[in-house]
Amino acid sequence: VRGAGVHLYDVEGREYLDVYNNVPHVGHTHPHVVAAIQRQVATLVTHTRYLHAGILEYAERLTASLPAPLDTCLFVNSGSEANDVAWRLARSATGGNTGGLVFEHAYHGITEAVAALTPSGGRPRDPRVVTLGLPAAQLRAGDTMSDAALRASARDAEQALETLAARGLKPAACYIDSGLTSSGILDPPPAWTATWAGPVRRAGALIVGDEVQYGLGRSGSHFWGFERRGLVPDIVTLGKPVGNGYPMGVVIAPRALVEAFQAKYGFFSTFGGNPVAAAAALAVLEVLGREQLMANARATGEYLTARLLALLPRHPVLESVRGVGLMIGVSVRAHGELPAPRVAKFMVNHMAAQSRVLIGTEGAHGEVLKLRPPMPFGSAHADRLVAAIEAAADALGAL
Amino acid sequence: VRGAGVHLYDVEGREYLDVYNNVPHVGHTHPHVVAAIQRQVATLVTHTRYLHAGILEYAERLTASLPAPLDTCLFVNSGSEANDVAWRLARSATGGNTGGLVFEHAYHGITEAVAALTPSGGRPRDPRVVTLGLPAAQLRAGDTMSDAALRASARDAEQALETLAARGLKPAACYIDSGLTSSGILDPPPAWTATWAGPVRRAGALIVGDEVQYGLGRSGSHFWGFERRGLVPDIVTLGKPVGNGYPMGVVIAPRALVEAFQAKYGFFSTFGGNPVAAAAALAVLEVLGREQLMANARATGEYLTARLLALLPRHPVLESVRGVGLMIGVSVRAHGELPAPRVAKFMVNHMAAQSRVLIGTEGAHGEVLKLRPPMPFGSAHADRLVAAIEAAADALGAL
Repeated sequence: VRGAGVHLYDVEGREYLDVYNNVPHVGHTHPHVVAAIQRQVATLVTHTRYLHAGILEYAERLTASLPAPLDTCLFVNSGSEANDVAWRLARSATGGNTGGLVFEHAYHGITEAVAALTPSGGRPRDPRVVTLGLPAAQLRAGDTMSDAALRASARDAEQALETLAARGLKPAACYIDSGLTSSGILDPPPAWTATWAGPVRRAGALIVGDEVQYGLGRSGSHFWGFERRGLVPDIVTLGKPVGNGYPMGVVIAPRALVEAFQAKYGFFSTFGGNPVAAAAALAVLEVLGREQLMANARATGEYLTARLLALLPRHPVLESVRGVGLMIGVSVRAHGELPAPRVAKFMVNHMAAQSRVLIGTEGAHGEVLKLRPPMPFGSAHADRLVAAIEAAADALGAL
Repeated sequence: VRGAGVHLYDVEGREYLDVYNNVPHVGHTHPHVVAAIQRQVATLVTHTRYLHAGILEYAERLTASLPAPLDTCLFVNSGSEANDVAWRLARSATGGNTGGLVFEHAYHGITEAVAALTPSGGRPRDPRVVTLGLPAAQLRAGDTMSDAALRASARDAEQALETLAARGLKPAACYIDSGLTSSGILDPPPAWTATWAGPVRRAGALIVGDEVQYGLGRSGSHFWGFERRGLVPDIVTLGKPVGNGYPMGVVIAPRALVEAFQAKYGFFSTFGGNPVAAAAALAVLEVLGREQLMANARATGEYLTARLLALLPRHPVLESVRGVGLMIGVSVRAHGELPAPRVAKFMVNHMAAQSRVLIGTEGAHGEVLKLRPPMPFGSAHADRLVAAIEAAADALGAL
């Protein structure tokens, strides 16, 4: 019934530590964002057929943080709409190509077009979409990949492209959530990116950087997740955290690409880029800067990772720690009769009920604990989280 | 830069009469809706994975206003997302059928799937979609259609279905914006509906009632536009006015249909149905009731229509008055060298610049003046609007 900072409160006033929600990026009901929304909603809510200073200022601030060719914004209402428009842009830019490439277990949204780009059980339902294999889960920042592993990854990409070609399809776009979140929270080095980005681009596809999960500093090391991957996408999409909960999505692409699309289709979103969305999103950027939340994500992420790694020897059910910043995964092992996904589910429920700590799961079968809190998450919160994980692991041992 | 009730204000403080915007349904910055948003945004913004009383209350209030089988809601962020989900629901319910039927010049949104259901220049770009012909523009409430006209309409629907079948396609859904807004603002009698709804349903397609434009009392005679058409759709979609500008869309369908879809796809929208959306949408329903805005739409619509009809003999450039309630169209004729769409554009611009009255255009070529104000539009506003139309027609005569 109530949220503040990294905490949620139920109807009986009990406090929960929120290690699940990335939408309230700068914290639940952050006063600066709340005030910006309250002020604008009482002043004007209209659309981008009327010029408004707020959306211009936001577009300028946002594109200034992106690589130069990414200079033009289209505003929509969710990450799904952003990925859907990116798909239409890529199809338009490639002369109508219909093939799509995504990573195994990726999630890109809920419209018909992007649901097709969201493989379930690892395999896409739509024959126009093929998957690229994942990097090894144990890779961590600074790790290098062997030449053999890099060659295997490049070969996998070539094979995916051949599969499309064998079906008579040319590729329009390759999507990557740079946090590889729903694929299990992976953090491969830039050398990995080159293995698939090269072949994909040579085949004519555009690369869509889906920053819905990993953008706005979550990695702690880079403001944009694609920078951490050593990649400059052709199109970037934003969603969840961009308005701290105000429904909003953004597509950023080179001006020529957007103008060609507009000339053909006259794209317009009724709510997209309205003055309240602009005020909310601008306030999010301001808070990120003022409160140095990316630096906080790095510091807390390092502290939390060290504490989690120290748990592994004591709790054999905890297998590995993945990710960086405030996007951390802990994969679990099977325990007795319980397969790994059931272990993860037991721990999630135990942590919520006994420790009032909210987390989720990710990975192919839900075997990875997902730790993805609002950005003001500090070391004291990390301590509470680690204690809750230990308590859940202990409870599992006592079953 | 500012809006209040049926007025907008520019950066120099000049007041404009808004006869264009239907998104601020109960009026720009309505205090009751603003307060509801301000309160909730400072309390909690989360998602429907956590139960919240607000969205339950809204869903109950909304479904209570709909025919009994329409008892289950899916919440999304725009009319486009709502129509996209309705398409996925219809495909799922028909076992994967891929054919679509829409009316000529219809508009249903911007995702890839619904852009395909949005014909441009009268003809769809996607071969999986065929169009149904429009009823005669001069039909008004209470008018009857001749048996010959009804037979022709039924034959047209049969032919559209045969076209799909000849392409090897079975129909999944037929969409109707019950205001036939972008088709030119038409108001055919219920007998017309039966001519196409029967054949379409016998062919196995679901009927999607797109209430994005016409729902929530705009016709003045019925709360839902499909009631005015004598139709009970299989799925209903809401968008633009539902949150008075807060980004929101709703899909309402029978429970069994939604549950089968959920079992297969596990549909979830991050922002859809969040507590702020629920608070905004509930406040809209409350204001509609308290301020009797549907009755106002009927009264103002009747007054405005009578005044517009009285203009026709004096201004030959004005051809006909269409529609009902606060969804009124005035088709214009060519004038000298200017074809009708240029006449309409001249009048829109003249009215904005000289009279500070904002309207738009609709119809196949933009030859219909679109009068679609917020719902608190009264007879004094109608007088100002009529004076502005006369001034524009006079200016055209003096060219």
